[in-house]
Amino acid sequence: MNDAPNEAGSFAFTLRKSCPHTRARLGSLRTPHGSTSTPAFMPVGTAASIKGVEPRRIRDTGSRIVLCNTYHLVLRPGDDVVRDLGGLHAFMRWDGPILTDSGGYQVFSLAELTETDRDGVTFRSHIDGRTLRLTPERAMEIQLNLGSDVMMAFDECLPAHADREETARSLEERTLPWARRCLDLHPGDGRALFAVAQGGLHEDLRRACVRALAAEPFDGLALGGLSVGESKEEMRAMVSASTAEMPAEKPRYLMGVGSPLEILDAVALGVDLFDCVLPTRNGRNGAALTFEGVLRLKNARHTRDAAVIERDCPCAACSGGFSRAYLRHLLQSREMLGATLMSIHNLTFMQRLMAGIREALETNTFESFRQRLAAKLAGETSIPATRNTST
Amino acid sequence: MNDAPNEAGSFAFTLRKSCPHTRARLGSLRTPHGSTSTPAFMPVGTAASIKGVEPRRIRDTGSRIVLCNTYHLVLRPGDDVVRDLGGLHAFMRWDGPILTDSGGYQVFSLAELTETDRDGVTFRSHIDGRTLRLTPERAMEIQLNLGSDVMMAFDECLPAHADREETARSLEERTLPWARRCLDLHPGDGRALFAVAQGGLHEDLRRACVRALAAEPFDGLALGGLSVGESKEEMRAMVSASTAEMPAEKPRYLMGVGSPLEILDAVALGVDLFDCVLPTRNGRNGAALTFEGVLRLKNARHTRDAAVIERDCPCAACSGGFSRAYLRHLLQSREMLGATLMSIHNLTFMQRLMAGIREALETNTFESFRQRLAAKLAGETSIPATRNTST
Repeated sequence: MNDAPNEAGSFAFTLRKSCPHTRARLGSLRTPHGSTSTPAFMPVGTAASIKGVEPRRIRDTGSRIVLCNTYHLVLRPGDDVVRDLGGLHAFMRWDGPILTDSGGYQVFSLAELTETDRDGVTFRSHIDGRTLRLTPERAMEIQLNLGSDVMMAFDECLPAHADREETARSLEERTLPWARRCLDLHPGDGRALFAVAQGGLHEDLRRACVRALAAEPFDGLALGGLSVGESKEEMRAMVSASTAEMPAEKPRYLMGVGSPLEILDAVALGVDLFDCVLPTRNGRNGAALTFEGVLRLKNARHTRDAAVIERDCPCAACSGGFSRAYLRHLLQSREMLGATLMSIHNLTFMQRLMAGIREALETNTFESFRQRLAAKLAGETSIPATRNTST
Repeated sequence: MNDAPNEAGSFAFTLRKSCPHTRARLGSLRTPHGSTSTPAFMPVGTAASIKGVEPRRIRDTGSRIVLCNTYHLVLRPGDDVVRDLGGLHAFMRWDGPILTDSGGYQVFSLAELTETDRDGVTFRSHIDGRTLRLTPERAMEIQLNLGSDVMMAFDECLPAHADREETARSLEERTLPWARRCLDLHPGDGRALFAVAQGGLHEDLRRACVRALAAEPFDGLALGGLSVGESKEEMRAMVSASTAEMPAEKPRYLMGVGSPLEILDAVALGVDLFDCVLPTRNGRNGAALTFEGVLRLKNARHTRDAAVIERDCPCAACSGGFSRAYLRHLLQSREMLGATLMSIHNLTFMQRLMAGIREALETNTFESFRQRLAAKLAGETSIPATRNTST
């Protein structure tokens, strides 16, 4: 499922091939804890756990790199605790690559009484009301304490429809200078630091932000502030404009995206990395992802449905012979095992999707693969991929 | 961990050895879905799932036979649904032996507006308020639909301190005739039917009930209506009196028991089979069972505790290197994985305890094993083994 040699070493991105018909790219990404082929999808382990799934099972889904959330881990158990226990890899028993976000998105979406100044953000924990502060320097300190392989620069994430003036000021006064302050703290020890490009839904601001960040020696470039409520067309326009400004040699990460259709689209626009809570969250809620579209297992028609979710799926749920009827029963009875098996299936689906995309890129058939699959998955639009406040 | 050949066949109980110092017994129990050595502990899969643990993981804990609850499965998904899907083994993907209770205990503890007559019980579902009826005939039909290897006869479970007269009448008019009606429906196809002896806290009634049931061709005898709020001494007296009346050649099952200390005691009184929600429920709540006593992982002193729960434990949590600090974090964050890993550890502990008991019986050292371990586990009394309303 993953054809890159699982080589560990200093961070490096290798562009292996470009699609002749779209802007899609086939590559590989090396980190101190191993490699992954790209385009790649990262399961989200908000609080240092992909909800309900053991790390070895995560690996079984084909996942090679996971994401953890800085904001949640600072609040609980604290980055000092994780550091004292040997960092996130030792803490959560995941020996593959880990990417951490900067905490920016969650501070602006989850925390209470947020006050932003030129230097950073003061906010109250949504868990216990403690007052905390995040600055570029603190965000780097946290991520170094966590020991992530790929760190994100601290950014300001405005509401999707912030006006031009406010957005421009945010970039000028916060996101750009904050990114540079993070860069000053790059450990230079083989771990990577990505910058996060913002700019709301203003194409020119997005382009300008990307150009400014691309001029600095970041190891990769991320697209932030998307999939936060804007339309599919708006998101696509922003992604397209942003990747157009990005240098070919750096990996591109679209944060918080997305659904299978959104990923197919964004890959065609040149994105290499994705993360989303969709497979786990929607799985817990009874939506099984398949190559024929979404199966809603809580539906009464599955009461006596002896079939597994997807016949040729190698996941623990399908290959283990757990029927749709049994999964439905577990979901209806709020049995944890239902959430676990559904999450394993959906993550396996996502990794099979990514493997299919990579295989198609390898054989120059990505565009027809994408169109064929998009037609089958069209019904999927009813489950939007909302960004994670938790997984 | 389990030294009986995993032989499948018609139900049979083989008494292999008796303890020279106590009334403890070493044996083995064969069912159409495989065998288990006794004394044995059965994890509880109330709604056809041991909460949060995949079947293959259950087997990894050393468990060889599991219990499911008739009452819960009748309410959801319905025994007809389970039957249509091939029975419980196929439904929950557990290919080992399954024991089902009769539904009696839960009807009397969980259902609403219960009305008992000579023929059975009418009650309302605690889930959706539907009116349902259980009779001896219906309890047998359900268990045959579920396809259990060991069925329990339908009994009336009175409150622990029901008076003598009420208890005697219950035995005479309900529990004993109901058991005989169940026996009339014994399928005689290799599956087993156990009778449930009641009698409250009245020793003479317990003895009389056991004698009456022992005279009938049941495959095994269970002790019901215990561990429902009575004192340890009361329970011990009832178990002792009951097993004293039981024929040596039939297996004895103490329903809903119990804590490691209670099991050590009951084994010494001649009990062969146990089930309890304690390892899973207490695990979910943060209590880790160990051979040095209970570890309460939510305690702040484990915040930076890098040790695993128990160093020599082969379970997925301990051998997987998950630290007490990480488990504490998962429990505090209400992450499902915490419940899963704790349940796996605690079930593994219970199976190691049972394996230790069997090994000690094999080598005629059970009594010293029991006393040594009881001294270490003395602190455990603070977590009583309450009977399951669910797991």
